[in-house]
Amino acid sequence: MLNRYARRMERSTVDTPPPGRSPSAGTAEPVPNQVGLETMAKEARAAQRWLAASSGALRGQLLEAMATALENDITEILLANRRDLDGSAALTVAQRDRLTLNAARVEAMAASVREVGRQRDVVGEVVDGWVLPNGLRVRRIRVPLGVVGVIYENRPNVTSDASALALYSGNAILLRGSSQAFYSNRAIVESLRSAISEVGLPEGLVGMATETSREGALAFMQLGAAMDVLIPRGGPELIATVRSQATVPTIIDGDGNCHVYVDASADLGMAVDIIKNAKTQRPGVCNAMETLLIHVDVAEPLLRLLDEELAAVELRGDERTRQICERALEATEEDYAREFLDLILAVRVVDSLNEAIDHIRRFSSGHSEAIITESFANAQCFEREVDAACVLVNASTRFVDGGQLGMGAEIGISTQKLHARGPMGIEQLTTTKIVIEGEGQVRH
Amino acid sequence: MLNRYARRMERSTVDTPPPGRSPSAGTAEPVPNQVGLETMAKEARAAQRWLAASSGALRGQLLEAMATALENDITEILLANRRDLDGSAALTVAQRDRLTLNAARVEAMAASVREVGRQRDVVGEVVDGWVLPNGLRVRRIRVPLGVVGVIYENRPNVTSDASALALYSGNAILLRGSSQAFYSNRAIVESLRSAISEVGLPEGLVGMATETSREGALAFMQLGAAMDVLIPRGGPELIATVRSQATVPTIIDGDGNCHVYVDASADLGMAVDIIKNAKTQRPGVCNAMETLLIHVDVAEPLLRLLDEELAAVELRGDERTRQICERALEATEEDYAREFLDLILAVRVVDSLNEAIDHIRRFSSGHSEAIITESFANAQCFEREVDAACVLVNASTRFVDGGQLGMGAEIGISTQKLHARGPMGIEQLTTTKIVIEGEGQVRH
Repeated sequence: MLNRYARRMERSTVDTPPPGRSPSAGTAEPVPNQVGLETMAKEARAAQRWLAASSGALRGQLLEAMATALENDITEILLANRRDLDGSAALTVAQRDRLTLNAARVEAMAASVREVGRQRDVVGEVVDGWVLPNGLRVRRIRVPLGVVGVIYENRPNVTSDASALALYSGNAILLRGSSQAFYSNRAIVESLRSAISEVGLPEGLVGMATETSREGALAFMQLGAAMDVLIPRGGPELIATVRSQATVPTIIDGDGNCHVYVDASADLGMAVDIIKNAKTQRPGVCNAMETLLIHVDVAEPLLRLLDEELAAVELRGDERTRQICERALEATEEDYAREFLDLILAVRVVDSLNEAIDHIRRFSSGHSEAIITESFANAQCFEREVDAACVLVNASTRFVDGGQLGMGAEIGISTQKLHARGPMGIEQLTTTKIVIEGEGQVRH
Repeated sequence: MLNRYARRMERSTVDTPPPGRSPSAGTAEPVPNQVGLETMAKEARAAQRWLAASSGALRGQLLEAMATALENDITEILLANRRDLDGSAALTVAQRDRLTLNAARVEAMAASVREVGRQRDVVGEVVDGWVLPNGLRVRRIRVPLGVVGVIYENRPNVTSDASALALYSGNAILLRGSSQAFYSNRAIVESLRSAISEVGLPEGLVGMATETSREGALAFMQLGAAMDVLIPRGGPELIATVRSQATVPTIIDGDGNCHVYVDASADLGMAVDIIKNAKTQRPGVCNAMETLLIHVDVAEPLLRLLDEELAAVELRGDERTRQICERALEATEEDYAREFLDLILAVRVVDSLNEAIDHIRRFSSGHSEAIITESFANAQCFEREVDAACVLVNASTRFVDGGQLGMGAEIGISTQKLHARGPMGIEQLTTTKIVIEGEGQVRH
């Protein structure tokens, strides 16, 4: 039946140029009707019903087709990306890098989509089940959330990554990227929709909001019951807006103000390796270390080692740190609260494990916190008392990533406690339904 | 260590009379300092740390002590309840019944608390775990949410039920009941706090908001990060306020606009039994049936049977229903959308299973939906296509209740999809934490 789904869905939501940007001279585009958000959301809702009833095999086939489509459409996608880059003179070097696509990057996007499609299917999984004394049979079954929304900033690969995760877990997806990446995102969505259509599913499964103004963003996060969950991917300003304005339930991919605590019993060689890795391997990401806490007993030897080993990193320390390490600047309260996302490290010397845990409880953003210790008791205490999505013992915070942890690709890392905590993969894009079967039982 | 916890927490949050109600003449009460919500939330946060580190045995002992305290304090609780009843002349009969306590009801509250304390402990449970190729050991562990808030209407038993579930799952709880039940709730909270103190835990684990105005309710739901989750228990007005005003993450215990669909293949005797049970066994609750959908092929015999069997129920039907059953009034769109919570039933005759599912998709509140059928294919289709917390085949919707389903006592029934869906017991008052242990692994 699904393969007989008529291609009734019009290619209507992805053809409108972003407002405020006139088409480049010479590229005479058709001027299609702008489809409103509500219409797009309704199409997604209707389309999702088809996907919810589909087999895992069909969803795997769909993702394979999406990957192939991206590979086949590399030229169109790179041309669209060039157009975005030409129109975005005001970007910083880092922003431009995040926006830029090349053949290798598009191929990597296709490979990611393909990999998601090879994961174990979670839709329909029986989470648990039991039989009641009255004979009723109860099963808790994993089902798609429904319509997933993602609002994100410059990186065009989020368009294909998020679509792959949402569709493989049986959801429709509504995308709202930035105006800088508009043409790239549109080209990617067109490519994905052609693949959806090819396997006989409704293209409305992937919808893209074309109104890229601030009002457009607000309207997107205020779709109410039309969207089942909204996942924002972006900086603190976006997160704050979503927190205060969204009427849709959200899962927050928040800051990573990650700490590493070096216990008195730590192996200092191991500590140096982990600190270097956590701070410098990729400083601009959420699982990089931002603050180092050192037990006073090992502060002097460790800081002497780090002075050399972290030569490229600016240190900002408390008084005891600065007494040992002269090049360290003074750390303020804000430094301890901040996510630097840069080669800057806040440092504090503490008198005890408890003082370290108190510092973490005060400043943690609930992402990832690590202890370096040889003490079993202290490892246990840290694991138990630190309240974060991920707690690590003798390992780099950089491992907190769905792929690295063997949890598959992720749509983000949740720093909230409800629904999903930590890396969010296909399982976190589902909910459960309780099915109760009987033979006419009534309640007494 | 826990038993040596000094009784430093003052009995400060439960001693203030509600504003706008002067103490009865002759009951000269001390006038304590009103403790602000923020202070109460901070006490709860600090107290929860002790509970999070406690053993399941201690939490079991705590609930046993709470049950015994309620039994010992029956006189005080009933006196306080009398005071509430005397001060609340404006209540309807049903409201007064919900507010009224007697010895048997307080004993039932104690029994519920005791029963929760005998459930399997879920704190610290390893949900899953695995070892990565690089040797890192990963475990996903169940941990308390932290500080749970409950805002509720008249029923004083919610005070002890919710406290038992929150504390047994390692959480602190903040309670905000109605002004009508103020003295009853305060007496119950005092009783529970004396038990908490007795087992050597901080009384701040149970906090009660004493400001019972609308502003007080708003301040309660806007505690932000001080509260980890808010569960509203009450009517549509409360739910709507929480939806639009809360800054705390919420789990909505929403309406139950529950449908029963009688398929063409149904056993009509079974159908009558289930319909009678679902509509009349307790019409005022969320899992009672509100709309009956009947396949046209069995409409005439079934409606003739129901005409007699549901003599006490007012029927509101579509045209085909009224042609068969003359006493049925005309059903409006609003009737299909409404939760009557009364001996009123909306009825509609449909031409197919699909039409029934479409009706349910349109009007369902996502609580509980049932089909009566002898067809395996139709049962499967209904289970798959109906999007609700609970889907039943050949069983009464009245079974959707934590206790009835063998899931233990519940703090509510979630009609949302994120975090918890269906009955919310101790497991739904937890989140998970990922613990990663290594020997110095760094990311390459």
